[in-house]
Amino acid sequence: MPTVSRHTDAIAASRVIGTNVYNTAGESIGSIEDVMLDKTSNGIMFAVIGFGGFLGIGEKYHAIPWSLLDYEVDKGGYVVPFTKEQLEAAPVYSINELTGADGTRARDASYDYYKVDPYW
Amino acid sequence: MPTVSRHTDAIAASRVIGTNVYNTAGESIGSIEDVMLDKTSNGIMFAVIGFGGFLGIGEKYHAIPWSLLDYEVDKGGYVVPFTKEQLEAAPVYSINELTGADGTRARDASYDYYKVDPYW
Repeated sequence: MPTVSRHTDAIAASRVIGTNVYNTAGESIGSIEDVMLDKTSNGIMFAVIGFGGFLGIGEKYHAIPWSLLDYEVDKGGYVVPFTKEQLEAAPVYSINELTGADGTRARDASYDYYKVDPYW
Repeated sequence: MPTVSRHTDAIAASRVIGTNVYNTAGESIGSIEDVMLDKTSNGIMFAVIGFGGFLGIGEKYHAIPWSLLDYEVDKGGYVVPFTKEQLEAAPVYSINELTGADGTRARDASYDYYKVDPYW
């Protein structure tokens, strides 16, 4: 019999993309648009979280360190340990800035802002 | 001016998925179906490569360590340093086995088969 686990350590990138993200107060802050992968270090750079905008127009994006995303089965989404104010004050980028060649700069700023130890 | 780099260290998961994979002889061996992410270690577990089958029926999947995929601009795809015979003899799985909760077992077998040092 296969082991049934709802809180697994392995997750497919295609399942992560599109998942909702909530803050500590349970408010929806957006959804995961993409996940940036690091070729050099085998590390997951960050999740790209989209918020605001309408039909993609005026939408802004955050880079949030992967290790900060905690999946909660009850909510069916990820919870990040920040208030709405903390998230609103975080660096924002265009989708091209985050998923382009220069993602490392956004990664560094994000790990710095959220005070997460670099994996690299 | 932004730095133009065609061989970047950062790549979006959504762009990786669907990319063709070739072996050392330049033969197409399939395409990347998904990328498995590790919650525990911030590491990229492996790429899921589909080959064979027809319209998804009878298709088999390999787990290939992320660090073995080298993007070649000329081919517009990834090249893995193996012969067709080596790849055919590698462990195969169903898509559910690779992207489900039990991906760790396939990861371990894959790193062992391809002689890649564990990142975890």
